[in-house]
Amino acid sequence: MAHEARLTTALRELIGSQRVAALGTLGEDGAPFVSMVPFAVDPLDRSLVIHISGLAAHTHNLQRTPRASLLICQAEVAGQPVHALPRATLDVQASEARDEADAQACRAAYLARFPEAEPMTTLGDFRFVRLRPQGARQVAGFGAARSLDTAELLQALGTAP
Amino acid sequence: MAHEARLTTALRELIGSQRVAALGTLGEDGAPFVSMVPFAVDPLDRSLVIHISGLAAHTHNLQRTPRASLLICQAEVAGQPVHALPRATLDVQASEARDEADAQACRAAYLARFPEAEPMTTLGDFRFVRLRPQGARQVAGFGAARSLDTAELLQALGTAP
Repeated sequence: MAHEARLTTALRELIGSQRVAALGTLGEDGAPFVSMVPFAVDPLDRSLVIHISGLAAHTHNLQRTPRASLLICQAEVAGQPVHALPRATLDVQASEARDEADAQACRAAYLARFPEAEPMTTLGDFRFVRLRPQGARQVAGFGAARSLDTAELLQALGTAP
Repeated sequence: MAHEARLTTALRELIGSQRVAALGTLGEDGAPFVSMVPFAVDPLDRSLVIHISGLAAHTHNLQRTPRASLLICQAEVAGQPVHALPRATLDVQASEARDEADAQACRAAYLARFPEAEPMTTLGDFRFVRLRPQGARQVAGFGAARSLDTAELLQALGTAP
């Protein structure tokens, strides 16, 4: 129990401290495609928010196949070992902001983390997409791996301890 | 031409400096799955080398579907902007070391980069897998993106300038 709680705290810290993730989408040719996405957390909605261009391959991929995979990994540091870096792979379902109010909520969450991205939000070909976690695999270090269901994940994404 | 050469130099530096990548494989359920993999470069073979466990999901995925995607992204630094981080997504074809000599070559390349992983190479469930690039999409910064074919990629993976 204490161990599980520590892992949930570690996951919350990972999601809160890392700002970029690796998004795996399914290409038109049926092959996986991984791209870098800056992401924010919307603790009220308990989803992740990304801001992607209509010109980008991952956007087309998500429109065809909304089910995707998101790896959040603690950034490596030169000279430090990498094999036990804390990380988590989230199974996610992508959906564009459903209306103007939802887009504004996404925008607020995204700009809270990335104020420097404000000019990009005025570009017509960019849109906000929510990634709703369905489950995850967390590796907190050597011998500390576990699978999480949606309820456990939402706990890590919320603001409550 | 000078611009292309600069991008190739940037790609070589990226692959040389980063030690972990995000590997996108195709899950049994047809969904993409992204996991963290430490990787080394074998400049003679001009392939990337990973060392993965027979117990891991990505290993089963690669055995079923050897075509995968590998994102190498410069590690984020706290307080620094992330949207223009240099990165490249490589389309790769995975294959296990074909014989004992090939496994030894993989081992040498891997341990040159990760001497601390030596104990893991004695575990029976781990094996070396080569990732041979077939093409790539490189983002070297804002407005500096390009696609590379296999020949251009191999140039960036080799030891020659």
